[in-house]
Amino acid sequence: MSLRHTLSLAVVLAATAGLAHAAPASDEPIQPLEAPKVKNAGMVELGKKLYFDPRLSKSGFISCNSCHNLSMGGTDNLKTSIGDHWQQGPINSPTVLNSSLNLAQFWDGRAMTLKDQAGGPIANPGEMASTHTLAIAVLQSIPAYVAEYKKVFGSDKVDIEGVTKAIAAFEETLITPNSRFDKWLKGDKKALTKDEIAGYELFKDSGCTACHNGPAVGGNSFQKMGVVEPYQSTSKAEGRVAVTKEEADRFNFKVPTLRNVEMTYPYFHDGEAATLTQAVDTMGRIQLGKSFTKEENAKIVAFLKSLTGDQPSFLLPILPPSTDATPRPTPFE
Amino acid sequence: MSLRHTLSLAVVLAATAGLAHAAPASDEPIQPLEAPKVKNAGMVELGKKLYFDPRLSKSGFISCNSCHNLSMGGTDNLKTSIGDHWQQGPINSPTVLNSSLNLAQFWDGRAMTLKDQAGGPIANPGEMASTHTLAIAVLQSIPAYVAEYKKVFGSDKVDIEGVTKAIAAFEETLITPNSRFDKWLKGDKKALTKDEIAGYELFKDSGCTACHNGPAVGGNSFQKMGVVEPYQSTSKAEGRVAVTKEEADRFNFKVPTLRNVEMTYPYFHDGEAATLTQAVDTMGRIQLGKSFTKEENAKIVAFLKSLTGDQPSFLLPILPPSTDATPRPTPFE
Repeated sequence: MSLRHTLSLAVVLAATAGLAHAAPASDEPIQPLEAPKVKNAGMVELGKKLYFDPRLSKSGFISCNSCHNLSMGGTDNLKTSIGDHWQQGPINSPTVLNSSLNLAQFWDGRAMTLKDQAGGPIANPGEMASTHTLAIAVLQSIPAYVAEYKKVFGSDKVDIEGVTKAIAAFEETLITPNSRFDKWLKGDKKALTKDEIAGYELFKDSGCTACHNGPAVGGNSFQKMGVVEPYQSTSKAEGRVAVTKEEADRFNFKVPTLRNVEMTYPYFHDGEAATLTQAVDTMGRIQLGKSFTKEENAKIVAFLKSLTGDQPSFLLPILPPSTDATPRPTPFE
Repeated sequence: MSLRHTLSLAVVLAATAGLAHAAPASDEPIQPLEAPKVKNAGMVELGKKLYFDPRLSKSGFISCNSCHNLSMGGTDNLKTSIGDHWQQGPINSPTVLNSSLNLAQFWDGRAMTLKDQAGGPIANPGEMASTHTLAIAVLQSIPAYVAEYKKVFGSDKVDIEGVTKAIAAFEETLITPNSRFDKWLKGDKKALTKDEIAGYELFKDSGCTACHNGPAVGGNSFQKMGVVEPYQSTSKAEGRVAVTKEEADRFNFKVPTLRNVEMTYPYFHDGEAATLTQAVDTMGRIQLGKSFTKEENAKIVAFLKSLTGDQPSFLLPILPPSTDATPRPTPFE
């Protein structure tokens, strides 16, 4: 409370000094991210190991981190992902960073929670291509995993409920606070350049914040891709209609977070926008009916690059070895 | 010097107290590993990023860490590795842990140094499938890499010499000291169980240390796979003859290190031994003409599991993002 009070006071003082842009966060459509409070450190540690463990895949080669790489903004930086046997995925891997702030998971929101999401790729034949039964059998055969699981869940019978709960608990820690934009929001006027502030003003004035708002700068609504003019794509992804079966939801996708967007290229559900410049241009045209000038586009891009926050910082997890009883991966079958 | 003196003294005292097995390291065919001294921290940091960067591959999906995974004993725990487009590799990925102690790199020793080794997989069409030219173009387009490279090498022109030198510098830090066996070697009699000590005695008495000796418990000679009876394998790997063109070197392979062997399954150049039990049994038969009893085998395996040392411990590296100018990966071409 006292810290918040101090901050508010600083903001008021800054405003008094004529620093119009250093407004209180509450007046802005975007709010700063706050560092997550870890509730269950043991569960997070277990989830971290599982997140990095390729033995949850049939091949023994693909882990959660393969397509949501925490060295690379929580994405694979590919248009669409690579699955078991090098299958081409149907859609761009969204970032896992700040994903706990999403109203639902996947581009079409078909999983309501991170826990529900985590079970999907493990058993998807086009992704990790295992089954929940096999993945659990693998973990159950590894005493160090069983012991850690028991500490966290009180049972030595590993199940997919606990496994996905632990992965989700780890993912909930992947919040990226302290971006330069957040510092500016909190009153540090020097945290942004003039161009970045101008870009933010343009971003607001042009209507981008109608969808990209809140702490995650998106992630909190489904919107039609192609409002003013249709989006041209060879992608077969239909969006939210696949979940709701409502024709009105065709090409409605979850609005992606713009946090760390400099790191999460390429953009859109089909990954067809290779650069931020291209993404801003397309969004302006098809969503807002606006053609940004080169200068305007550059200012918005400059603002967007100020949204990169503190990346996850933890020791590379060391995975407990398989035992003689562990089912072996079958990458070439 | 004073630490070493204290340790020697402890060993002498232990020996005086009748602890026959806690002999000075110098009397044993295996010597303890010592923690590496980092000579150039900046180069190691750069190398670490490069080691984890899948943009060194054509697909943008495969990094050094994909097949030499530092979460999993520096291996992929697969019989043979997965390369670009899911190609099946011809040979088992040897561990990168303690690889600086090897007399040469690769199973056939075709690279004399870690630096020479590092360039191979990047440009191998069956592995990372890039070219040195493309990999350098990618790095050169990323200002954060160029800045870091300049700090380390004094030039802002990134080249493959520097890149492989940095990767090798990182790999040289991947030494795993403080295994229970090393503690025992250094005089801590309680570090091993009776069975583990018996296993070590059997390991020595049976002749295993003829090849598996030195600080890395191997890695320091080429030996024929199948001395007493031929090794049956469907693998096409011919061993050292591929390098020397000497028929006498057919099926001569580099003796693998047994450090961390509990984590580096499956075993042999073809990965056909799934378990340590199987590996010990086969080695006994085809190299030494010995059939270990079940009990003997178990003791040797128990000893081998005491060779697991401190695994690499560092923060997951965060990679600098690509820019608009960075050549994009082409995983599906």
